[in-house]
Amino acid sequence: MTAPALDLTADVLTLTRALVDIPSVSGTEGPLADAVETALRALGGLEVVRIGNNVLARTDLGRDERIVLAGHLDTVPIADNVPSHLETVDGVERLHGCGTSDMKAGDAVMLRLAGLFGVPGAQPAHDLTFVFYDNEEVEAVKNGLGRVARELRGWLYGDLAILLEPTDGDVEGGCQGTMRVVLTVPGERAHSARSWLGTNAIHGAAPILATLAAYQAREVDIDGLHFREGLNAVKVEGGVAGNVVPDECRVTVNFRFAPDRDEDAAEAHVREVFAQVLAAGVTLEVTDMSGGALPGLAEPAAAAFVAAVGRPARAKLGWTDVARFAAFGIPAVNYGPGDPNQAHQRGEHVRVDRLQPAEDALTAFITGSPA
Amino acid sequence: MTAPALDLTADVLTLTRALVDIPSVSGTEGPLADAVETALRALGGLEVVRIGNNVLARTDLGRDERIVLAGHLDTVPIADNVPSHLETVDGVERLHGCGTSDMKAGDAVMLRLAGLFGVPGAQPAHDLTFVFYDNEEVEAVKNGLGRVARELRGWLYGDLAILLEPTDGDVEGGCQGTMRVVLTVPGERAHSARSWLGTNAIHGAAPILATLAAYQAREVDIDGLHFREGLNAVKVEGGVAGNVVPDECRVTVNFRFAPDRDEDAAEAHVREVFAQVLAAGVTLEVTDMSGGALPGLAEPAAAAFVAAVGRPARAKLGWTDVARFAAFGIPAVNYGPGDPNQAHQRGEHVRVDRLQPAEDALTAFITGSPA
Repeated sequence: MTAPALDLTADVLTLTRALVDIPSVSGTEGPLADAVETALRALGGLEVVRIGNNVLARTDLGRDERIVLAGHLDTVPIADNVPSHLETVDGVERLHGCGTSDMKAGDAVMLRLAGLFGVPGAQPAHDLTFVFYDNEEVEAVKNGLGRVARELRGWLYGDLAILLEPTDGDVEGGCQGTMRVVLTVPGERAHSARSWLGTNAIHGAAPILATLAAYQAREVDIDGLHFREGLNAVKVEGGVAGNVVPDECRVTVNFRFAPDRDEDAAEAHVREVFAQVLAAGVTLEVTDMSGGALPGLAEPAAAAFVAAVGRPARAKLGWTDVARFAAFGIPAVNYGPGDPNQAHQRGEHVRVDRLQPAEDALTAFITGSPA
Repeated sequence: MTAPALDLTADVLTLTRALVDIPSVSGTEGPLADAVETALRALGGLEVVRIGNNVLARTDLGRDERIVLAGHLDTVPIADNVPSHLETVDGVERLHGCGTSDMKAGDAVMLRLAGLFGVPGAQPAHDLTFVFYDNEEVEAVKNGLGRVARELRGWLYGDLAILLEPTDGDVEGGCQGTMRVVLTVPGERAHSARSWLGTNAIHGAAPILATLAAYQAREVDIDGLHFREGLNAVKVEGGVAGNVVPDECRVTVNFRFAPDRDEDAAEAHVREVFAQVLAAGVTLEVTDMSGGALPGLAEPAAAAFVAAVGRPARAKLGWTDVARFAAFGIPAVNYGPGDPNQAHQRGEHVRVDRLQPAEDALTAFITGSPA
């Protein structure tokens, strides 16, 4: 299937609609990646490479600083919400459709910037790298940005990375880490009619749940941003049969931790929280770990960008791909026109009046204009 | 398939082996029921009826009292343990095979008694009813004794019912009731990175598990038998995804209650135990309820039987089919040569030296001989 050609001179709303109307559910990004690649190559001022359905493009003007702009091309599954349509609700014009907020509006802004600064004779204040990647909405192992980091790591180098994920026009700095542990309570099986012959592992989970219920999550300010941690059971399972005292109960706990803790510190904290049950024979296994990212907003490029946007920055509490840049020591922020609350909703939409301001703020930053 | 004929004049070990060697996993009792029916009809002193794979037979000698002897014909699935074989371990001779203890040894004793007292001219002190039934090892709705109770209830009438379930030669009186309830803890879903926007239902289960862990089960003596209750979580489940604060957690609790509580009293007790969480919004649903059975050992026929066995009676803590008789006001006990700990084991066996004493004790009781 060949997608229609993208016109990078069209306004950002038209471009957003064009992107939404080319379906690109994770794993099927080919036609959209083709259209993006073709449009970028046609500009004449960019070096373009492609691996899989990841399309990378960059200027090479010898500027002192390089800004990386990144966005994923894929969406969650379509739910009767493609093609796009406009609706006006309470006087606010909205573009509806799968991926409008998450994050084709951001991709459209990137393509607009490529059209402005990726042409011969353009004079951006910074060199620019554009990264359009696939498979962000599925398992981390498939994530296109991860593949680029492994296979074309030099392409991710820069002084600041901006992910155009939906942030409602705010700058979100850093991201919290996330780890999952499974706490396994042992017991001894017995017929429930003679339960005193066994040891009920589900009953043994009582102090784990009580510890979680009583846990006071830490709040901390880093680089002026406010982070709020959380420790939550996300799964509990136990039971053999309706007449058996169960010999095992498993509680899966998710710890979201501020980026002033590294992975080791996060694990040590969780072990300390559960020290009493661990001493009593409960075992703890770390099943998942992704470190956070410090905001890095004190870095000159990041500070200049926040100034260009002209709105207060806030902490990113979920884990995002900014951590992949942070792992290379590159300051990275989320900033995009989409509404994060609209992500993955059947009625997903983006406010039309958020699109042009995002393009304008980035244009001002890239040209080095005062905010 | 035609099973070999059963010789009811053979000794009880030979007869037990013959029964074990005719496979009768629940749902496939046909050939064994055929063999039993044929053997009983051939005796000439019994009225015999059959419904499905349930075979009923009784004397009609006008005696003052009637004793019902009951045993199920089916077994759990065979696990490379048919045909039977003899083994001597530590000087004790054992018959190995699927259903030896649970409960073809008991069925063999019943057939021996039929052979002795179900022939013309026999002079038992009591009239006798024999109930061989199917599908005891599967869902209660299939239970053959339940079908007989619905369709041929008059056949279960008697002054005492003896189930020849494995009791290791002891008399077990009454049985405890069993009920299951599901406690559902509500919560509010949220992304686990912003957990304070939700309410974690798994954390909300903490007081339920703490209540269970602290619960002191009641012990009570009834008719001289000692009953010990139990309240146990047999299942816990909760969780939506690894990054979601869950909005529901379900704890399934099994209450085993002594027969001095009826069903209503049992439910009231469980509601009282969990009164605090129920007041806080947890819901309770009764999903399963089977009342217990009072021992009834003060009834003359039951007392005479206990005296004939000559060993102290003990309480039955699991739920058994004696409750079906108790529901009609018929005293009922478990008494059989099998070992209850061998039931459903791959290495299931019965001690050979338990077989003849069981036959002898029942013969003495039926003939009215002194113990």
